Amino acid sequence: MSDTAAMSVPRPCDLLVRADAAVTQDRDRRVLTDAAVAVKDGLVLEVGGQAELEAGYEPEQRLDLSGKLLLPGLVNGHTHLPMTLLRGYADDLPLMDWLEKHIWPVEFQLTDDLLDTGARLGCAELIRTGCTAFLNGYFHEHVTGQAVIDCGMRGVLGEGFFGFPSPLFPTAEDCWNTIRNLETRFENHPRLRTAVTPHAAFTVPPEELAASFALAEELDIPWQIHLAESPTETAVCLDKYGKRPVALLQEHGLLTERTTLHHCVDVTDEEIALMAETGVNVVHNPASNFKLASGMSPVQKMLEAGVTVGLGTDGASSNNQLNMFREMGLAALMGKVRAEDASAVNAQAALDMATLGSAKCLGWPELGRIEKGCPADMIALDLGFPNLMPVFNHVSHAVYAATGMEVCMTMVAGEVLYLYGEFRTMDVISLKTKAREAAKWVCNAAEK
Amino acid sequence: MSDTAAMSVPRPCDLLVRADAAVTQDRDRRVLTDAAVAVKDGLVLEVGGQAELEAGYEPEQRLDLSGKLLLPGLVNGHTHLPMTLLRGYADDLPLMDWLEKHIWPVEFQLTDDLLDTGARLGCAELIRTGCTAFLNGYFHEHVTGQAVIDCGMRGVLGEGFFGFPSPLFPTAEDCWNTIRNLETRFENHPRLRTAVTPHAAFTVPPEELAASFALAEELDIPWQIHLAESPTETAVCLDKYGKRPVALLQEHGLLTERTTLHHCVDVTDEEIALMAETGVNVVHNPASNFKLASGMSPVQKMLEAGVTVGLGTDGASSNNQLNMFREMGLAALMGKVRAEDASAVNAQAALDMATLGSAKCLGWPELGRIEKGCPADMIALDLGFPNLMPVFNHVSHAVYAATGMEVCMTMVAGEVLYLYGEFRTMDVISLKTKAREAAKWVCNAAEK
Repeated sequence: MSDTAAMSVPRPCDLLVRADAAVTQDRDRRVLTDAAVAVKDGLVLEVGGQAELEAGYEPEQRLDLSGKLLLPGLVNGHTHLPMTLLRGYADDLPLMDWLEKHIWPVEFQLTDDLLDTGARLGCAELIRTGCTAFLNGYFHEHVTGQAVIDCGMRGVLGEGFFGFPSPLFPTAEDCWNTIRNLETRFENHPRLRTAVTPHAAFTVPPEELAASFALAEELDIPWQIHLAESPTETAVCLDKYGKRPVALLQEHGLLTERTTLHHCVDVTDEEIALMAETGVNVVHNPASNFKLASGMSPVQKMLEAGVTVGLGTDGASSNNQLNMFREMGLAALMGKVRAEDASAVNAQAALDMATLGSAKCLGWPELGRIEKGCPADMIALDLGFPNLMPVFNHVSHAVYAATGMEVCMTMVAGEVLYLYGEFRTMDVISLKTKAREAAKWVCNAAEK
Repeated sequence: MSDTAAMSVPRPCDLLVRADAAVTQDRDRRVLTDAAVAVKDGLVLEVGGQAELEAGYEPEQRLDLSGKLLLPGLVNGHTHLPMTLLRGYADDLPLMDWLEKHIWPVEFQLTDDLLDTGARLGCAELIRTGCTAFLNGYFHEHVTGQAVIDCGMRGVLGEGFFGFPSPLFPTAEDCWNTIRNLETRFENHPRLRTAVTPHAAFTVPPEELAASFALAEELDIPWQIHLAESPTETAVCLDKYGKRPVALLQEHGLLTERTTLHHCVDVTDEEIALMAETGVNVVHNPASNFKLASGMSPVQKMLEAGVTVGLGTDGASSNNQLNMFREMGLAALMGKVRAEDASAVNAQAALDMATLGSAKCLGWPELGRIEKGCPADMIALDLGFPNLMPVFNHVSHAVYAATGMEVCMTMVAGEVLYLYGEFRTMDVISLKTKAREAAKWVCNAAEK
């Protein structure tokens, strides 16, 4: 029995959540049955059994999730939220065709209004499928920032940039100013952070990468980059700089604990050892790597080497979902064929990536768990769905059996954003109308 | 304008369905907007525009699916329905460990009651995720047959067998009698058919395979077998018979249009050419092939060679879903990485597999389409889910963006089995209780 429960006078709390079971993702990966969580000021006050917490707390509100499974909110380690607007607009195309003939021509014409619709569509899908925080990379990030504030999620905003001069930034200084302004604009917001976000090692010269890293150090925020996404990228780097992508970053001192690398499909065993040694974080994006035929990342090897691996959906136009449940399943499935071993990337490993791993990639390591003192970001799966019957192992069900649509509750910082079909912070019906109008605009823009 | 609409007197029909759009899967792969379907006696009477069909028909009932997308019911080409009982019971294990230490010891103790619970759980999930027909392979198939009759789906029952004597059949004649009895028992049922179902080329000797094929010819029903599932299977066949699996079947005259081969992961280009030439049907099972680390089937090559390829989930214990939407997405994703080409196995190809392809594998080629004269097996996706916004391409959304849980209506032979959260032919709540009890039984049986 805990100290709390032994007290004779119940302590006050804002909310007491009860569920059939809770996958805590704490250090011991405990799965509690007849579980309860006490919440105060947006943080988890205590996790334990229902009887114990009912005796120990006097809550202002209760949330009874009987027949449900509680999990930490999932964390999306890599996405481009406003691109949700382009979901299904151009599929089944080779990468360069897709980018040069379809995506870029439309992207360069997008207005803040359209970006806003895309970002809000993305937030709605993330909330609906149990994601509570994400690491973004796109343009005009203040737009996504406002969407995140309004919908109640957490987000890390990354203003993306290519080598200078670029369409958005004539000089590096213009870009650094935008990043500083973004940081200042949201610095007091408890659910928003920022990250320095160069596009890739083959689109931003090494000196500019190094300068951007210095800015990340100065602001003490994460530095993220697409890296080693495909053999094609490796070939370009070798041609331009005589080095493979990982070596190029190493040469310029950019492999650090502040660094988050997206994709890492084409990496060697030696590069994985170096990544482990330097403490970089990697975000795995299986759906996108499949859809663009980039290849299969050696995730099991990275895990065995001790590299922190998170999980991301990438943008909706190369996925086409922003569904972390689907992504967990894909990570486990791809991991086995890549390693030629059915025991590779097991269910617990996939869940760890989508919670603790991604949290570290965001530079927000207290996320991704239901644990005393951590933010009360939680979700619930409805165990009444036939595809979740019977139950032998809750973690297996979360990774292999759930589609993500069994999520019936999504909570961030103790606030319920979605409950039993109702979005509490978003108007999804009017969003559908806006999305329809925006799609017409995209089709017209594509013809220009 | 069709002949019907030109008539001055509206014709009677049982049901008129209206939807925002319909993916017909007809010969021209038409996608109709403001679509309507007239249904009579369980068959599609006409497909067309809403205005046209409203003028041409006087329906007894109407189903207004505004805001929804109509699709043909998906067809699951390969599953082991009662194994749904073992969903998540043993994951992340090497194949032989999984079978010998976990699955088989429990399977041999299963009673008809437990098989019934498993089969009904499977039906519930199939209906919920938009599947209207499936090709099964398991034991005591009359149990699954009754479940199919009760829930209103279509099924093809395959009484599985190993080489004789086997635990269930002391002699071949015992097995053939069971298959004949199954055929007789259900021969007058419009929604049930049977198939001869030897387990595999390495577990049933070639002479017995040939004898079972003769039975399939005599009964004029399909003959299905697991084949070339992994390099391990190939090695066993080479060791036992000096031939690879496809060659072994060819030697015994078993590659025919009556033949459906499940998996075909480890097949060469020459074998694919032979499969195309002989007109065999193949069922691709990407999730299972990933989960058991069997490898990636060369699906794009098969399609290019002209092989009929269907799609299946395999059993829930190697998937762990029976969700054809997820399977379509996996087929398209895996196909690209296997072919190293982002344009391989495109969305239309994946949908074709899950509809027309699987229908042919079941020996029921009139399924998998919404077309005049074909069975009225249809489903609808709710386009109000945020992950289906915006809409550029309905086929892309069905394959890449939908999870399967957006299905809001499932109809077989003109009868609605599921509508807006309500199962009309099943009691899913009592099924949950039965599943819980059955899971306890499994855990006890595993310890024996």
